[in-house]
Parts: sequence; C-alpha cells; structure tokens
Amino acid sequence: MSAGEAAWLAAVVSGLGAAVSGEGVLRGIGDDAAVLALPAGESLIATVDMVVEGQHFERRGPRAATPADIGWRALAVSQSDIAAMGGRPLWALSSLGVPDGMTAAEVEALCAGLAEAAAAYGTAVVGGNLARNPERLVLDVTVLGAARRPLSRAGARPGDLVGVTGRLGAAAAGLALLRGGERLRAACGAAAGECLQAQRRPQPRVAEGLALGALGPQGVRAMCDVSDGLAIDLARLCGGTLGAVLWREALPVPAAVRAAAACAGEDALQWALHGGEDYELLCAVAPEAASAAPRAVARAGGALHLIGEFTATPGELRLAARRGGRGGPLPASGWDPFA
Amino acid sequence: MSAGEAAWLAAVVSGLGAAVSGEGVLRGIGDDAAVLALPAGESLIATVDMVVEGQHFERRGPRAATPADIGWRALAVSQSDIAAMGGRPLWALSSLGVPDGMTAAEVEALCAGLAEAAAAYGTAVVGGNLARNPERLVLDVTVLGAARRPLSRAGARPGDLVGVTGRLGAAAAGLALLRGGERLRAACGAAAGECLQAQRRPQPRVAEGLALGALGPQGVRAMCDVSDGLAIDLARLCGGTLGAVLWREALPVPAAVRAAAACAGEDALQWALHGGEDYELLCAVAPEAASAAPRAVARAGGALHLIGEFTATPGELRLAARRGGRGGPLPASGWDPFA
Repeated sequence: MSAGEAAWLAAVVSGLGAAVSGEGVLRGIGDDAAVLALPAGESLIATVDMVVEGQHFERRGPRAATPADIGWRALAVSQSDIAAMGGRPLWALSSLGVPDGMTAAEVEALCAGLAEAAAAYGTAVVGGNLARNPERLVLDVTVLGAARRPLSRAGARPGDLVGVTGRLGAAAAGLALLRGGERLRAACGAAAGECLQAQRRPQPRVAEGLALGALGPQGVRAMCDVSDGLAIDLARLCGGTLGAVLWREALPVPAAVRAAAACAGEDALQWALHGGEDYELLCAVAPEAASAAPRAVARAGGALHLIGEFTATPGELRLAARRGGRGGPLPASGWDPFA
Repeated sequence: MSAGEAAWLAAVVSGLGAAVSGEGVLRGIGDDAAVLALPAGESLIATVDMVVEGQHFERRGPRAATPADIGWRALAVSQSDIAAMGGRPLWALSSLGVPDGMTAAEVEALCAGLAEAAAAYGTAVVGGNLARNPERLVLDVTVLGAARRPLSRAGARPGDLVGVTGRLGAAAAGLALLRGGERLRAACGAAAGECLQAQRRPQPRVAEGLALGALGPQGVRAMCDVSDGLAIDLARLCGGTLGAVLWREALPVPAAVRAAAACAGEDALQWALHGGEDYELLCAVAPEAASAAPRAVARAGGALHLIGEFTATPGELRLAARRGGRGGPLPASGWDPFA
C-alpha cells in the first residue's frame, strides 16, 4: 500500500471500527478479496445500490446531509433489499468515489455512519474500494445476505391481502421539509424531527422480514421493499398479471406526517402513496395468515398493517376509502431517477 | 419500473445478453436481490473495484477506450482478485454511474464488453444498479466467487520461490503507447497491437489460479495478483516479515514489450517491475513444488515463471541479474491512485 492510499484507508478503517468483523467472516478487509462462510442450508442473496451526490443526497447547502447520515443511508437501502427477501444482511462491500475537497475526517465520519447501520442490523463490512470522483461523492454498497427460503416479488394471488410494515410518507415528508428550508421546519415543530429522521436514517425492516419469511409460502407469498413509492412498488408486486385495491383509511400515515403536510400545504396521502424512500416491506399475505402475519411481526418488535387486497384484474390499481369499497384509479407513479 | 429508467435498463439487458444466467443462479437480475447457490463445501469470496473515467480510463481524446473495452476491464480486474485466491468468479454485480451525454447505445456496448469478460471466465451478471454521475462514467463491479481452500497474501516462507504467471510489462507498455499518440504506435508496428491489447483487455488468470490452488499448502503458500506493479505487490506478499530477491533474467518480459520500450525510449524492465495492471498471479511456491507448480499451470493452458526467492530479511527487496546473485535494492514503488 502506498502513502497516498494509506492515509485514506486509515480514515476508512478508523471509521468502520468493529464493523469489519462479524458472523461468518473468515477473512475481511486487507486481502485481495474477503472469504466468507455462508450458513449451511441457506441461499446467498446479493444486492447493490449506488448513490450519487446531487441525485440521492446533498453534501452542501440547506438540504445537506451529514457524512454519517450519508453512510448510514447508503448501507441501509441495500440492507432493506435483503430484508425484502426475508434474509439477514450479513456482509457489505462499500466503494467510495471521493470528491475533491472531501477531508479524511469526513471520510471517517461517513464510514462511522455506515458502521452504525452495520452494527444495528448485524452486518459486517468485509470489503471496499477507494477511488477519486472529483466532482461529487459516490457510494456503491453491495450487501450479501442469507436466507433459508428467500421470498421474491412474484407469487401474489388474487385475494391475498396487501401488507405493509411500519409507516408511510415520513421520508417524503422529511424531504419536503429539507426542501422547504429552516422556516418551514421551525413552523412544523416536533413533527419535523420525526420526518427528517425518517429521511436521514431509514430503518431497514430486517427483523420484520425474517418474521414474515418464517411464515412460509402459506403465510407470505411475495415481498419487496417500498423504495420508489407504495403505488409503483405495489404495481411491481402485481407483476402484470394482478391488480390491487388499497384502503385509504388503513394506510399507516403517522400523525407527524399529517402535521408536516398541514404545515407545508401538501397532501400526506400523496406522500404515502407516491413519495418513496420509506424502506418498509410490502407483501402479499395469504388470507389464512391475516391474523398470524401481523402477530408474527409484532413479536419481532414491528408492525404489519393490512392495507388492501390483490385482485384478478391485470395492471389495475385502485384506491378505495376502506375495505369493501370500489374507489377510483390509482396511478402507479413514484420516484424515477432517470425521469 | 418507470419509463426513464426502463430505457436504460433495456440497453443494459440487451448488452448483457446471455451473461445474466449461469452456474448457481437461482434468481438473477429483476428482483430486489439475486439468489445464488454456493457450491457445497466451498467458501464464498467477495471483492469490489471501482473505476472512474479520467482516473482509470478515458472515454474521449487520443487515449480513449471503447465502451466495450471499459466494460471488459471493469469486470476483469475484479475477476482477477478472485483468481488470486484460487477461486472461480461465479457472479458479478455491476453499478453504473452514467454521465451526461452517454447514449443508450454506448451503455449497451459497455455491457456487451462486460458480458464478454463474464462469458470468458464463467461469470454470470446477477445484479446491478444505474445512477447518474453527470461529469464522468463510474463503474463499480463486485465479483463473488467460490473456492474450496482460498489462498491469501499471507503464508510465504523464507526459501519459497517467487512465481509469476504469463508476462510482465505489457499493460504498462500499452499505456505508454496510448499516451505517446498515433505516431509512436505506428512506429512500433506489430509490437504495439499486443501491448495495447494487454492494456485494454487484461486476462484474469482464473485457470492458472485454480491449478495453483489445487496444489495445496505444500505447493503454493500465498498468492495475490499484480495490479499495482510487481515490486509493490511482492512487498505485500512479504508482509513486513520477509524480503525477496528477484532474478532479472528470469522475468517474463515479452519481445513486444522490449520492442515497444525501444521505440518509446523507455525501459522495459521498469515497466515489468513497477508498471502495474498486468493482472498476473504472483505467488510463493514451496521449494518442493518448483517443478510441479509450473507443470500444473502449463496443463491449465498457462505459464508459471519462477522469478526469485523469498528471504528472511524483513522489508528488503533486491534485484539480482540471476539466481544466486546478490544484486541491489529494489524500491517497492508502483501505481498509487491517491499519490
């Protein structure tokens, strides 16, 4: 290792701290590659997500995220993909494109944020790479996980219930508050804090995913995470062969999101349906598991809400006021990085 | 999937072609994550490399690489890390930061180059991610492999022989020819083609690594690949507890490299020692395996050259004319992206 690279690597290693070791890590950072022991009888799950300054986060200006929040978020969104398969996110590899002017202390803080998310969800950081990307910070995080029976997006059936964990709209509310500036955030009071935290530190639903996966195919038939928005991710679960109807009154839109929407003159329902970045789990619950699935998730420390039903009408999404209603069409729109 | 993202993904999928399936791929691109079956009894090996336009390659100007070469190279350098552990590079995940002005056709060509390297070494592309990085192209490729007994950089002993596969200096010669411009390349004649090809399409030594790994710890005790340069990568194998002496006359510097050096007014030996990017395997061969190791690599279709010996003097690299000579000090310098 040369002197120039060594200084950056020292910041990375210091920031990562204890996150470099963990379950199944036979050899971590330092060799040409990591060597890992996959638990016997489990499948390997692999996912990658790249985030770019100016597109997924800001480092400067009123909407700036701290380096630690950037690191947390970059890992959490990939941990969420593993959670969406009902798996455990065991290992991560993280590549960093460092821009001009970013200091070693900032790199260290970013890695410390990454390490926080790693520790929170049982992930070890086993590899990485540093490069220079002069104009903006780029992070690319691969997460490897294990599951005995990985769930997939395919498999929902007409009559299955639409389940979603946690809460909806908080991340979109947080983004609106960031965009709205200091004055709006002050006006929103306590509600602002909860929504900003949801935007900055998404919580991948790992325990919830494991609980749902453990119910077997008679319990949960398909699952994904809500990254681009409830409606568009639900359309993906429908997969061209199904439709779905959502029950507006069943959507878990927390009080803080409603308060933030009132402050900002926005519609909390739109945030919940189309805002994205909630990183909740969205699943198809077999009707017979309508009681067991929420109970299992509650035992895991989370919450599962039954918010709608899959139908046999391909490609048709509808929004009704409540269960049994017919409602109106729901556009499958969400966040599109290339729009 | 939204329309904007869909157009880019279509280019990626078209470029990758058949490379999206392969050994152990239970579920590939298309879900939240890939699902993979690791061969029973093998360890998982994982590595990642990020390459950035302007730092690792150029897309414009006289040194421009084609999109296909960029794709090949980005995958090959990570396949080489797996080869360096004696493993098979089974699966890849590739993130692409697409700059402004890059066309879908260029993205497709890049992915086709990546698919060529995938097919050449038995790798399936099982995941990926697209983002926008306005100023320059960024590729980050994770490769996952499997090995029954992964080799590492640690384990060389005094008296072990230094082995290297293939040839040295060709990639550095190719880089010098790219930098030297069209006139120099024309003056070098046939030699130029071989060196440019080595720079543009590095060949990870997967079959060689498997053959060396199969010799067991009594055959090869430590291995890495030559990415930053023979001298600096050898210093890493020495690991602070050993030294090494190289035998100049044993270094596999091909005629084309010598010819290119003569044309360019450069020193072929310097390219071989410090040029880097050769992606050959560098290993510690037990003295008892001095005949068996080259034979095993030859049977695998490659070549292993014994080019020196590890010594008991920590941190001391020397260069002698030939075996038995004492020679002079060899600086452990190489390529440093942060220098």
